[in-house]
Amino acid sequence: MNFKKALEERTEYANSVINKYLLKEEGYQKKVIEAVNYSILAGGKRLRPILMKETFDIFNGKGEVVEPFMAAIEMIHTYSLVHDDLPAMDNDKYRRGKKTTWLVYGEDMGILAGDALLNLSVETALKAFDIDFENKNLSKALKILLNKSGIYGMLGGQVLDVELTGKKIDNKQLDFIFRLKTAAMIESSMMIGAVLAGADDNTVSQIEKIGNKVGVAFQIRDDILDVTGDEIELGKPVKSDEKNNKSTYVTLYGIEQSQKDVDRLSSEAIDIMKSLNIEDEFLTSLILKLVGRNK
Amino acid sequence: MNFKKALEERTEYANSVINKYLLKEEGYQKKVIEAVNYSILAGGKRLRPILMKETFDIFNGKGEVVEPFMAAIEMIHTYSLVHDDLPAMDNDKYRRGKKTTWLVYGEDMGILAGDALLNLSVETALKAFDIDFENKNLSKALKILLNKSGIYGMLGGQVLDVELTGKKIDNKQLDFIFRLKTAAMIESSMMIGAVLAGADDNTVSQIEKIGNKVGVAFQIRDDILDVTGDEIELGKPVKSDEKNNKSTYVTLYGIEQSQKDVDRLSSEAIDIMKSLNIEDEFLTSLILKLVGRNK
Repeated sequence: MNFKKALEERTEYANSVINKYLLKEEGYQKKVIEAVNYSILAGGKRLRPILMKETFDIFNGKGEVVEPFMAAIEMIHTYSLVHDDLPAMDNDKYRRGKKTTWLVYGEDMGILAGDALLNLSVETALKAFDIDFENKNLSKALKILLNKSGIYGMLGGQVLDVELTGKKIDNKQLDFIFRLKTAAMIESSMMIGAVLAGADDNTVSQIEKIGNKVGVAFQIRDDILDVTGDEIELGKPVKSDEKNNKSTYVTLYGIEQSQKDVDRLSSEAIDIMKSLNIEDEFLTSLILKLVGRNK
Repeated sequence: MNFKKALEERTEYANSVINKYLLKEEGYQKKVIEAVNYSILAGGKRLRPILMKETFDIFNGKGEVVEPFMAAIEMIHTYSLVHDDLPAMDNDKYRRGKKTTWLVYGEDMGILAGDALLNLSVETALKAFDIDFENKNLSKALKILLNKSGIYGMLGGQVLDVELTGKKIDNKQLDFIFRLKTAAMIESSMMIGAVLAGADDNTVSQIEKIGNKVGVAFQIRDDILDVTGDEIELGKPVKSDEKNNKSTYVTLYGIEQSQKDVDRLSSEAIDIMKSLNIEDEFLTSLILKLVGRNK
């Protein structure tokens, strides 16, 4: 398999799905729709929809019922970035080399565009009922989507992260932030793919574990790159954690242990795949790629 | 009927339903849960859940399937207030005589608490599937909930309101803001009650019209009270529109015409009820009360 080509194809497909659910920039709400579209189209790897679709395919999911959820999870991810960047939060002016939403549209519109994205994500996911009304798994998938993005998921991790900014944090707190802020949405992506394809509860809970390990490994890798990475290659400032006096996995455990944990977690994720008899070269390669491993 | 007593009973019931779906203030997310609970428990008339339940009862809705939606719509209403009050928006420090959420918990937590409330509202509404999984109307009710709160509902109205602050606005723009910012959530409350009780599409669309007229009349009445009302009785500052140099219904049409329109719209709402053979003394009294009419 040519991984690069396979990834490109999947990214293109994810983008086409997302585009399908974007709104037309017209009417009295034009400005917020522009801000929403700007935020989504500012780029991004589309990792979550790609993971969702791949997992859906692994479990032989059929039809287009996964598509509204692919768009929805990217919208939730985007809303979280738009709100994170706000002056009252991280006060970031650039993301992926582009001006952040609030910097272009104003702080008030930045708040409203984030709200609009979260609302729109659920509206979009609900369109799955138009595609397959009888599908009993839709409400289950919706519950996962909202649970993993809310207080007991992504948002809960963000809350602790904000609260502890500038403070010394311990390994339990860091683990909590990683599990919720980053891993929850990776878990969600893969679990929803599996649920929509009709996987049973036990399998879905194994998939959740894979998502968790990949998500945490990915976040540790992000902390490592903040120390060792190249600003241009990464497309974002490095050493930002140090500048912000932020406790990270690297400051708590050191680079060597951090790298070991990345390797261990990603290997464990792949081992669970094997135990489920999942043979998916693309997913395996993607996981390794995400955590910076060559094999 | 003793309207005051009937309203008290319904308010108490709405509060008990809302309380059932609040989260325990514990764990690493404790602070945001506190902020969420503070925001919801800071008061409010519970108008939207009361309207929802009354409409549900009018159409002979049975069981508790309406309860998660009652809590959900109050959470959405609350999230919109929490975000509206933010420094980057209306910069309000007090609401209903209490400190606003961001003033108590900080601006960052104000943003996150609003996000948490919107997310939680959908999580809560989804619990209706645990109560009545086979109910085919749940996805329809969810669609109304999210559509009426989103870009083509409440949020869209808020966007135009924010954009036009300090500017002269025309009657079309004001109508748009009233219809979306206020009326959409009143429509939603009543429509969801009807849908969950199994009312047909045609009836639901008549109910939408009632909600629209009541919502717009209610908002015009609010503009009138801002000019003529008493600060202590209202529990909020008066003449704020004038101070903010804000175009309102009253500045556009004058007090006399505004009052006429309130009377006309509320009468039209009651006429539609009659045409549907709805005899509900409480709802009729509530509508009149909302718009400041004695009969």
